[in-house]
Amino acid sequence: MQQDNYIFTLEIAVRDYELDSEGIVNNAIYLHYLEHTRHAFVKQEGIPFGSLTSDGLMPVVQRLEIKYCTPLHSGDVMLSRLRIERKGPRFIFFQDIFRKADEVIVAKAVVTIVCMDKTGHINRGDELAERIAKYLHQA
Amino acid sequence: MQQDNYIFTLEIAVRDYELDSEGIVNNAIYLHYLEHTRHAFVKQEGIPFGSLTSDGLMPVVQRLEIKYCTPLHSGDVMLSRLRIERKGPRFIFFQDIFRKADEVIVAKAVVTIVCMDKTGHINRGDELAERIAKYLHQA
Amino acid sequence: MQQDNYIFTLEIAVRDYELDSEGIVNNAIYLHYLEHTRHAFVKQEGIPFGSLTSDGLMPVVQRLEIKYCTPLHSGDVMLSRLRIERKGPRFIFFQDIFRKADEVIVAKAVVTIVCMDKTGHINRGDELAERIAKYLHQA
Amino acid sequence: MQQDNYIFTLEIAVRDYELDSEGIVNNAIYLHYLEHTRHAFVKQEGIPFGSLTSDGLMPVVQRLEIKYCTPLHSGDVMLSRLRIERKGPRFIFFQDIFRKADEVIVAKAVVTIVCMDKTGHINRGDELAERIAKYLHQA
Repeated sequence: MQQDNYIFTLEIAVRDYELDSEGIVNNAIYLHYLEHTRHAFVKQEGIPFGSLTSDGLMPVVQRLEIKYCTPLHSGDVMLSRLRIERKGPRFIFFQDIFRKADEVIVAKAVVTIVCMDKTGHINRGDELAERIAKYLHQA
Repeated sequence: MQQDNYIFTLEIAVRDYELDSEGIVNNAIYLHYLEHTRHAFVKQEGIPFGSLTSDGLMPVVQRLEIKYCTPLHSGDVMLSRLRIERKGPRFIFFQDIFRKADEVIVAKAVVTIVCMDKTGHINRGDELAERIAKYLHQA
Repeated sequence: MQQDNYIFTLEIAVRDYELDSEGIVNNAIYLHYLEHTRHAFVKQEGIPFGSLTSDGLMPVVQRLEIKYCTPLHSGDVMLSRLRIERKGPRFIFFQDIFRKADEVIVAKAVVTIVCMDKTGHINRGDELAERIAKYLHQA
Repeated sequence: MQQDNYIFTLEIAVRDYELDSEGIVNNAIYLHYLEHTRHAFVKQEGIPFGSLTSDGLMPVVQRLEIKYCTPLHSGDVMLSRLRIERKGPRFIFFQDIFRKADEVIVAKAVVTIVCMDKTGHINRGDELAERIAKYLHQA
């Protein structure tokens, strides 16, 4: 159980316009929640969204896996949690979303991020790694 | 100045995925904010979203006017406020959005809502009016 | 009847993820359709999206009014039409959306656009006016 | 190479409001494209969206993996292709998106879908399998 290893939790409330015609949160919206959580995390670390970009480095999602466990409905509040591992140039974000009311697991995602430099090539990612060093588990 | 007449205020934080390619909140997203605010208001009044529907009545937006005053950026938090007037079968929501940091006006909207019955005709709206009677200014 | 004055028509198909929990296209999505139509129009005129920006001018929506007449459903195709008037620095886009199957009016919108210069002030709009001169009705 | 095994291709044009603040299509939007493609496919097969629902069966995404290869920009048109395998109650949609202009691969996804019955349990999926039998590769 690695649940206790989360390094960041963000509370997010479902907004009704995120529901689809079946009355549950649309699958694509979860990727918004995941991105929003990563941005909130780097912001907390004093890395404003876009600052890596101004260094000429852009973090991009290379790969994403998500398992949908329990659908969210109107009025639900979620706890969106993450932990990070580094594998060479890749930053692996393990992101789990729980329903706040009962801590039931809603979705489990693994998001692989790399840093691209100005020429579009994958960077070693050392600048990003330095800024979030204390949270990284080398894998 | 009718600013002091607001009957409801909701705090909403900009999420980065709501920004468009110019780095500001996309115009369409404001309609989401306005809808989210109306739903939060009726929820506070004990009218869960969809309960009017189960009576066979569906509130629908008939008309909307919005003036964009100041764009919202990444990291901004807004105060989304509303007051309501009734004009016959129409419920007029006056909805203003302010940037929380400095109370600068962001957008001003007027949203006209009517209740449709099962046959698709406009209802007099008395059921809705009853439930929010204390907030209504007859116009 | 000014329907015959339209200068541009774009066919757009509803995508199922644009439906809300009531099974109809969400109100905010219509603003996306309207924006998409304006962009397709300026592209047709050889003004790629962003080229005005590179001149230091950015067209921004200042005001928008929309009347919702008939909701769109899954599978619907629409015809999104526009004509333009200029009033001083303001470009007024009259945009009407019809259901393709029966030409029933779906929504009627009036969108006011101004050009901002680099300092955030409203520009006279002459550069934009020149490029679309043949379509402009001075009002 | 299983590229020749695609059973369905849908052409989709990028809409400018799908771009994020970096000027490329936002990651979450690809899930919309994938869903839109699946819906277009079942519609072509005479299964209108929602008809399975009326049987009391609802197809839900259980799991999704996506690899982002090349970002899409304003003006791009994509070819969204799919093939299907069945593994017991699971329908595996292999969905690949190509940039139309040069057939460069944009994204590769594997989407696992199951049918839920009225009680929220996973159904064997035989009703869906029957309707799309000719396209199914048993795995």
